[in-house]
Amino acid sequence: MTPKKKAAGTEGMKRFQSAESQRRFSRQAREAGKKIGLVPTMGAFHEGHLSLIRRARAQNDVVVVSVFVNPLQFGPHEDYEHYPRDLARDLDRAREAGADAIFVPEAGEMYPPGFSTRVSVGPMTTQLCGAARPGHFDGVCTVVLKLLGIVQPHRMYLGEKDAQQVTILQKMIDELSVDVKIVTCPTVREKDGLALSSRNAYLAPEERAVAPRIYRALRFAQREILVGGEREPERLRARMTEQITDGTPFAVEYVAMVDPETLVERRELSGRTLIAIAARLGRARLIDNLLIHVPGGRMAEKVGMTREKR
Amino acid sequence: MTPKKKAAGTEGMKRFQSAESQRRFSRQAREAGKKIGLVPTMGAFHEGHLSLIRRARAQNDVVVVSVFVNPLQFGPHEDYEHYPRDLARDLDRAREAGADAIFVPEAGEMYPPGFSTRVSVGPMTTQLCGAARPGHFDGVCTVVLKLLGIVQPHRMYLGEKDAQQVTILQKMIDELSVDVKIVTCPTVREKDGLALSSRNAYLAPEERAVAPRIYRALRFAQREILVGGEREPERLRARMTEQITDGTPFAVEYVAMVDPETLVERRELSGRTLIAIAARLGRARLIDNLLIHVPGGRMAEKVGMTREKR
Repeated sequence: MTPKKKAAGTEGMKRFQSAESQRRFSRQAREAGKKIGLVPTMGAFHEGHLSLIRRARAQNDVVVVSVFVNPLQFGPHEDYEHYPRDLARDLDRAREAGADAIFVPEAGEMYPPGFSTRVSVGPMTTQLCGAARPGHFDGVCTVVLKLLGIVQPHRMYLGEKDAQQVTILQKMIDELSVDVKIVTCPTVREKDGLALSSRNAYLAPEERAVAPRIYRALRFAQREILVGGEREPERLRARMTEQITDGTPFAVEYVAMVDPETLVERRELSGRTLIAIAARLGRARLIDNLLIHVPGGRMAEKVGMTREKR
Repeated sequence: MTPKKKAAGTEGMKRFQSAESQRRFSRQAREAGKKIGLVPTMGAFHEGHLSLIRRARAQNDVVVVSVFVNPLQFGPHEDYEHYPRDLARDLDRAREAGADAIFVPEAGEMYPPGFSTRVSVGPMTTQLCGAARPGHFDGVCTVVLKLLGIVQPHRMYLGEKDAQQVTILQKMIDELSVDVKIVTCPTVREKDGLALSSRNAYLAPEERAVAPRIYRALRFAQREILVGGEREPERLRARMTEQITDGTPFAVEYVAMVDPETLVERRELSGRTLIAIAARLGRARLIDNLLIHVPGGRMAEKVGMTREKR
């Protein structure tokens, strides 16, 4: 261990493993009138995570980052065991990005024996990524609600790459009247457009070479809609799918064009539309999305009603 | 309207109908360093409710009483429509018992169109009352978690008559790490032993005359166990059921002897044991229970581990 690594997590940044110690820290901050920002993560930090921590740093008195690979949100045949973990590096990077505390519970701390409580926001959790990952979003909602109970933040920072997750958590927070604001941050990308993801580490070089096709298909759709005037979801979906899969080992799971608030499929492209893609590439399951304001159409007047970045 | 009634809810006690106004009140109290006690109710106050409000008054700086007949916790053929409501009287009595604020939301305020979030603590919600009332405890958990989000209390006051409800809500709060303490208060009874319940109003005079048999059966069980040395749940259950039903229109739903923490049936009476009864009598469904420390036996040493009154 280098001296630099030894300092991580002990110098300028608190590290908590028990919910009780994290909660005590948060309570003291609140009692001192401080605003708390929470960045909930599964670790294996990339620039996307760091952009969330920096934003939290800029907007709050106290920044708490949680690192917890949440078993509840993984299916039985998913990558829970192999999900990338690198806590020593995460500690350094979180501290450098401005975290005041990092909450790193063990699974047994979050879910003691007999744990059986679940939170579900209902139908929108079985669409899009939820169709291929049954129970995934109930696991996300349950762990996030518990993290909110422990950390008691005023604001919670989420990446726009996980658009469905943002929509579902906003619905949970609204419907359960949880007193926290969601702040979303733009997806951070490689130079070739690939959205940063801890799971990109799974890609073999030849897979990595074609991976940007997802984002390219999203930009293609944006041009077709905004410049070409495309309004037919089915036609656009077919062309996007072909662009992603043609000559590649990609297996597209969905190409969806949905209302960003309800995740209901648009039968005609109009108003604020979330275009979202999930595709498997080798061992990786990649997702990406783009929010497009489709001009004209009957839904155009709805633009002002929707979720805003805060 | 008499001058006295006119004063209710305006003199010395705030009244909130919107979640936002209640939350603002609670936030201000918290920011001023005050401790908040919540008494969640469905209204139609009797002495049991008032004992909870008085206890909250004695232990907190600010007492909030919620009155909300929660549609989520009623089955399609249950008494949601006919559940007793008397807000004017409740306002007077809450104020007299020491409430600082009363939160009285409409159903549409708590559950706007499209509301679909549910909280469930799992298996123990389908036992005892949950067996006859599917979805009931999910509805209770969902509304209580939402009330906790709105009112943000430090302590929540619950009556021991609803023992299963207390156990389930304690599990929800523990597992979701909600930062609130449950304080339970003893069941308040009529002179003849009948547990106070808003639903006692449904009883016809001849039903009311036999209603105390439930509590009498509980006291009988207590004597049989503590004095007579009874340790066989089946034999005791049969005798209790007979005492309740013999010559009466009672239909017993269950007579259960369970671990008060897990609600698992005791195969042999030992340790802390919750004896709980549910029975229908005319239009009313009545419940009652008694917590008994069964001396000796293998489980006796567990006594110290269990939930304590705070």
